[in-house]
Amino acid sequence: MRIGLSRAEYARRRQAVLDLMREKEFGAFVFFNSTNIFYLTGFAFIPTERPIALILSADGRKTIFVPRLEEEHAREFDEIDDVQCYPEYPGKTHPMNLLAEILVKMGAAKTTVGADADGYSSPQGYRGPKLSEALSPGKMEVVRDFISELRAIKSPEEIALIRESARWGNLAHALLQEYSLPGRTEDEISMRASMEATIAMLRTLGDSLPRGSSTRTGAHAGFRGQVGPNSALPHAVSINAVLKTGDVLVTGATANVAGYSSELERTMFVGEPNAVQRKFFTLMKQAQEIAFEAIRPGRRCSEVDDAVREFFEKEKLWDYWRHHTGHALGLLGHEAPFFDTGDDTIIRPGMVFSVEPGLYVPGVGGFRHSDTVVVTEDGIDFITYYPRKLDKLICGVK
Amino acid sequence: MRIGLSRAEYARRRQAVLDLMREKEFGAFVFFNSTNIFYLTGFAFIPTERPIALILSADGRKTIFVPRLEEEHAREFDEIDDVQCYPEYPGKTHPMNLLAEILVKMGAAKTTVGADADGYSSPQGYRGPKLSEALSPGKMEVVRDFISELRAIKSPEEIALIRESARWGNLAHALLQEYSLPGRTEDEISMRASMEATIAMLRTLGDSLPRGSSTRTGAHAGFRGQVGPNSALPHAVSINAVLKTGDVLVTGATANVAGYSSELERTMFVGEPNAVQRKFFTLMKQAQEIAFEAIRPGRRCSEVDDAVREFFEKEKLWDYWRHHTGHALGLLGHEAPFFDTGDDTIIRPGMVFSVEPGLYVPGVGGFRHSDTVVVTEDGIDFITYYPRKLDKLICGVK
Repeated sequence: MRIGLSRAEYARRRQAVLDLMREKEFGAFVFFNSTNIFYLTGFAFIPTERPIALILSADGRKTIFVPRLEEEHAREFDEIDDVQCYPEYPGKTHPMNLLAEILVKMGAAKTTVGADADGYSSPQGYRGPKLSEALSPGKMEVVRDFISELRAIKSPEEIALIRESARWGNLAHALLQEYSLPGRTEDEISMRASMEATIAMLRTLGDSLPRGSSTRTGAHAGFRGQVGPNSALPHAVSINAVLKTGDVLVTGATANVAGYSSELERTMFVGEPNAVQRKFFTLMKQAQEIAFEAIRPGRRCSEVDDAVREFFEKEKLWDYWRHHTGHALGLLGHEAPFFDTGDDTIIRPGMVFSVEPGLYVPGVGGFRHSDTVVVTEDGIDFITYYPRKLDKLICGVK
Repeated sequence: MRIGLSRAEYARRRQAVLDLMREKEFGAFVFFNSTNIFYLTGFAFIPTERPIALILSADGRKTIFVPRLEEEHAREFDEIDDVQCYPEYPGKTHPMNLLAEILVKMGAAKTTVGADADGYSSPQGYRGPKLSEALSPGKMEVVRDFISELRAIKSPEEIALIRESARWGNLAHALLQEYSLPGRTEDEISMRASMEATIAMLRTLGDSLPRGSSTRTGAHAGFRGQVGPNSALPHAVSINAVLKTGDVLVTGATANVAGYSSELERTMFVGEPNAVQRKFFTLMKQAQEIAFEAIRPGRRCSEVDDAVREFFEKEKLWDYWRHHTGHALGLLGHEAPFFDTGDDTIIRPGMVFSVEPGLYVPGVGGFRHSDTVVVTEDGIDFITYYPRKLDKLICGVK
């Protein structure tokens, strides 16, 4: 078994950039975004205050610009032709000026240079000139969203990785459910389930995973603070709550497989749910099913959210509305486009989305399932497959 | 026992911003950076494609601008006076335009508005206008690094949190060393040590930790791929290596306590090290001690790195040099300033740094200790306290 992307897949991605470059007459394209660099080369690194950039030349050559400490690491990647180092950040000469020198040496500064951003940015203490300043009088043009638009349509190889992610997210979630017993703390349950699923994943996939393909390989399942009444906060953070009989739980599970992830979330109950909890669970599940039905290639993303919003209107549920219906995902947990009333992107085959309308009832709890689906020629296929029905989501009952 | 920051600490931080605002005649200051918002209010949230901004008015009022899904969450924080919501991103009206409307309503648009960035940014599918565009014809001025400069000098309360972090990083590291036996995989060792230290930390600190004060509470220790010859890559990523007798290990341990972290790294050996390994260990330890001696308030950060570089020169070690001597840390793992030959920032009491010159020998391994120190009136105090001597860092030998 081999897990990962073919060299043809990387070549196809870069060809799309090269086509854009020809159209725009760019002599080179500079990528600063670490996800974009990973997408085009498979080079996974820890982003810090030290700038890293990928230069794609018009002749297809891939040059990576890294601090000295990444030189040997970058050389391990087949999809990189040339590694150019600067000593260190901040250093005696600012790395952005050294990058500009390389572009001048390549002859790219005689043309317009494309870039995914006008320079590097990092919250970790980086300061520096814009690339346009460092390159002046050379010309530069920012084309910000080109790669994220490419990334929105997943290839069969990418979908296979997201499906592999879902297998291990599913295992982590099954363990999470098994360990969700009254008296236990959320962090302990989450850490045990995540660790055991990760060990199983690494033992199973072993060397078939591409070496060093992600900075965060492994499976994870948890509650992130959505335990009991606190589950009414859609983006709670962990409070290390102790589970009690009667609690509503909102979970999340995923796994990182060669850089790709899936999203699985379930509403569960510690012991038998009461009538109010059952009511909101049923409504949430109906809302999700309306969303599944609404996703069709050729429709707009907004139509999916609008269908769910109609249901909120009809059932008088606005008091419990907190967010839109879903988002794309793949290399990042959240990606554009969004199932949002304001997003008119056309849904296309190969797009991968979370589907997760939620109801949040103060004092009672949150109700949200999230499933990952891939758009097909005529509807959707499910990528996540954990049980969705209430009677399968009661914890602590054999 | 109570762990966390006093309200006076938050007030002091905001007063520094208010002083700047008075000087620059700003009617309001807008913060988009999530670390800056946490620093000024204690509000820890999961940053996504949905913009979040803190508005500090000239009269000291703190207004947070959040998507609907964060409304109840934001209301839990005492340091926030007012919560203003937008429905969702992208939504029918772009949130940046709604934020501009709020600033106009506040009267701030009649003055110049300060901001830590000209609008929101996120890799997770966010697109939008600059704040200056949304606010036009109102005036705006970006003051990018003001808060990171404030953050560079830690208060006694902050240093206490970093010391608390070091206790739990130390425990995680002790467990990591205990579990580092031949035949085990790095991820399994790391996950077990991290889980057990986190459980101990949460049971010990319990409710004395401020509720929801971080999105990543807990202790961690691991190798991040720096096992055996692969340890010669300073920023390796995990390859789930199996530990073997004779391996050099480079470790890292920390814990997140109310948002603050420390940094502890050690060079260890699986079984008795050979003569070459001992030689490089000794040189690395000498380089670190030279750095400790060089850190004095009033000197420049560059002088610390220059002292270490002199040692590299004298001992002819340049082939093994990969990075500068250290960095500040606190709310983020890497912060400015840096112990780097190009950073002439004056060292001041209250600054907290990692001290971690390293030697990286291809085919042999990496040699790096990292300790966290705080600058005092006349030198440094150690925050990390794990043994540094070789005979204490041999794994699998009783």
